[in-house]
Amino acid sequence: MPGPVLDFWFDFASTYSYPAAVRIGRLAAEAGVQVRFRPFLLGPIFKAQGWDTSPFNLYPAKGRNMWRDLERLCEDEGLPFRKPEPFPQNSLLPARVAVAGMGQGWGEAFSVAVYRAQFAEGRRIYEPATLAAILSDLNVEPKAALDAAQSDDNKLRLRAETEEAARLGVFGAPTFIITGGELFWGNDRLEQALRWARKSG
Amino acid sequence: MPGPVLDFWFDFASTYSYPAAVRIGRLAAEAGVQVRFRPFLLGPIFKAQGWDTSPFNLYPAKGRNMWRDLERLCEDEGLPFRKPEPFPQNSLLPARVAVAGMGQGWGEAFSVAVYRAQFAEGRRIYEPATLAAILSDLNVEPKAALDAAQSDDNKLRLRAETEEAARLGVFGAPTFIITGGELFWGNDRLEQALRWARKSG
Repeated sequence: MPGPVLDFWFDFASTYSYPAAVRIGRLAAEAGVQVRFRPFLLGPIFKAQGWDTSPFNLYPAKGRNMWRDLERLCEDEGLPFRKPEPFPQNSLLPARVAVAGMGQGWGEAFSVAVYRAQFAEGRRIYEPATLAAILSDLNVEPKAALDAAQSDDNKLRLRAETEEAARLGVFGAPTFIITGGELFWGNDRLEQALRWARKSG
Repeated sequence: MPGPVLDFWFDFASTYSYPAAVRIGRLAAEAGVQVRFRPFLLGPIFKAQGWDTSPFNLYPAKGRNMWRDLERLCEDEGLPFRKPEPFPQNSLLPARVAVAGMGQGWGEAFSVAVYRAQFAEGRRIYEPATLAAILSDLNVEPKAALDAAQSDDNKLRLRAETEEAARLGVFGAPTFIITGGELFWGNDRLEQALRWARKSG
């Protein structure tokens, strides 16, 4: 019998998705919950709320707190942290690569590596060279993966995922959704989402 | 030698300040940290950010999530919860009463009781009768307390507290500030703020 499934919706520009992406594998295994990585784009969803950039840029006091808060969280979790420049970074290309990789067995490892590249090493994740280096480290042929990412079919898949996120009520990232059930928003809710997923399974 | 002090800044209309206010006494005692209750008004601070009501009303998707999230948090904490109507409620009068009570030994108990009245019992905390009933339960003479709350001196004290909050970079509630140091925003950060306060003491 299949156990409970938790969908992990994320955008690569999302700051709090970094600790979530790094932590979710271990925590889900401990909880006995299956996780599906669901990359999508926050941009169209923010636009529908009237925002043309990150709310952390639109509200500077909130933004200042977010950077310090993220730094403290990472310190408490023992995660390296480096503020990316620029912020937010265009997440379209890495999201397309991640979608292409989900069907090929390397999408999850790629996604975690993109977060580490951006938030631990301060690398520019919108540059194809950064993504190619990450793919090489995973023993994935970079040119084939980037070509697959930019195919029309794959572009439509990412668009459909973003529409699905909006349909499910996703308004930020990270978001965790128990299949057919509860939505949880934020890295702070990862443990709770896993507990509730296990109860529902 | 005095130990570490953590200031707890709150507005009575703030939803997540309910679990924070109910939990902070026990958690601070366990951590060996002294807490000061600092009531203030979020309204002027939100206005400076361009908001004329709660961001949970301005962004409906966030608002829907907040109510369900708060309900789940209260369920997990064993706290009763009832959504207040209307929302947000005018917090001016209870804030003035709380400021008046801080110097008289009943301000903290009054503050916790106002949160319970609003979020556990669905009562209207802007009505003098609600506040009078809470004061009576605390063996405080309601008329004297309400008169003290509405005195010019006390009104100015609350205004000065709100200005101090803005000066310290407070942009939401609950906010926890270690004297002369770190600012932590949100009920989710209460435990972390206490840990950091203890380290700094």
